Amino acid sequence: MRMLLIHSDYLEFEAKEKTKIAEDTENLKGKLEECLVSFIAVEREDESNVKGIIDKAVEEIKKVAEKLKVKNIVIYPYAHLSSNLSSPETALEVLKGIEKELKKEFNVLRAPFGWYKAFKLSCKGHPLSELSRKIVPEEEKKEKEEVES
Amino acid sequence: MRMLLIHSDYLEFEAKEKTKIAEDTENLKGKLEECLVSFIAVEREDESNVKGIIDKAVEEIKKVAEKLKVKNIVIYPYAHLSSNLSSPETALEVLKGIEKELKKEFNVLRAPFGWYKAFKLSCKGHPLSELSRKIVPEEEKKEKEEVES
Ligand SMILES: [Mg+2]
Repeated sequence: MRMLLIHSDYLEFEAKEKTKIAEDTENLKGKLEECLVSFIAVEREDESNVKGIIDKAVEEIKKVAEKLKVKNIVIYPYAHLSSNLSSPETALEVLKGIEKELKKEFNVLRAPFGWYKAFKLSCKGHPLSELSRKIVPEEEKKEKEEVES
Repeated sequence: MRMLLIHSDYLEFEAKEKTKIAEDTENLKGKLEECLVSFIAVEREDESNVKGIIDKAVEEIKKVAEKLKVKNIVIYPYAHLSSNLSSPETALEVLKGIEKELKKEFNVLRAPFGWYKAFKLSCKGHPLSELSRKIVPEEEKKEKEEVES
């Protein structure tokens, strides 16, 4: 997974047109102020451990949100961050999983997957306002390896 | 080089704070409307052929700008697009080279390199409004190889 985190005055989007892999949704417009925007590309290697990549992504986003004292989080699918994307099915599962976990503690707005979207963004510009992350799933523990080591 | 091209209603920036590699400049604020914003990360492999990577980047930006019928171009350094960056010296040389070439035909605004910057962006959201590119420098022709082949 590739992630770009932007501490923003606001993020506003409007879905304009479907691509072939558009999710079915009625949430076609949204806006959040004083937010952390998480642009996310789910990658091929994340398919091996969906639960693991969701957990690590949530952990990373929470860590930054807490440091910035932000209560509002935008999850924004962003395929352009990677040239090795997962299947659309996995991407949507991961994005929804991150949304579900973060909603336990934050106000979360998730922009729809697979739509061409207009957006307006205002990045604050302080030293921690733009961060990028490469997140890899933990290896799932194998019984055999545990016995051998 | 990694490039993210966004067809925008506007891009506005304000440099807030220097990093250790900040270029010396008085152009600390800027705004352009109806523009193509080129977010650019210059990469290690581009160091082998600075002239070549400038030419290919300019060619790519011009192609998209012409298709979109855009006369205004923003060059915006964006290290977060790559995890294999060039030296700051090469990055600045490439960014200035692209600016100089494009200025022959377009209105160009170049955001300063190595500064923490606030920015506001409005992406139009039509199918061609967000494009990403990986650009590699041409191999410089070697006499020996030409003879052998
Ligand atoms: Mg403000």
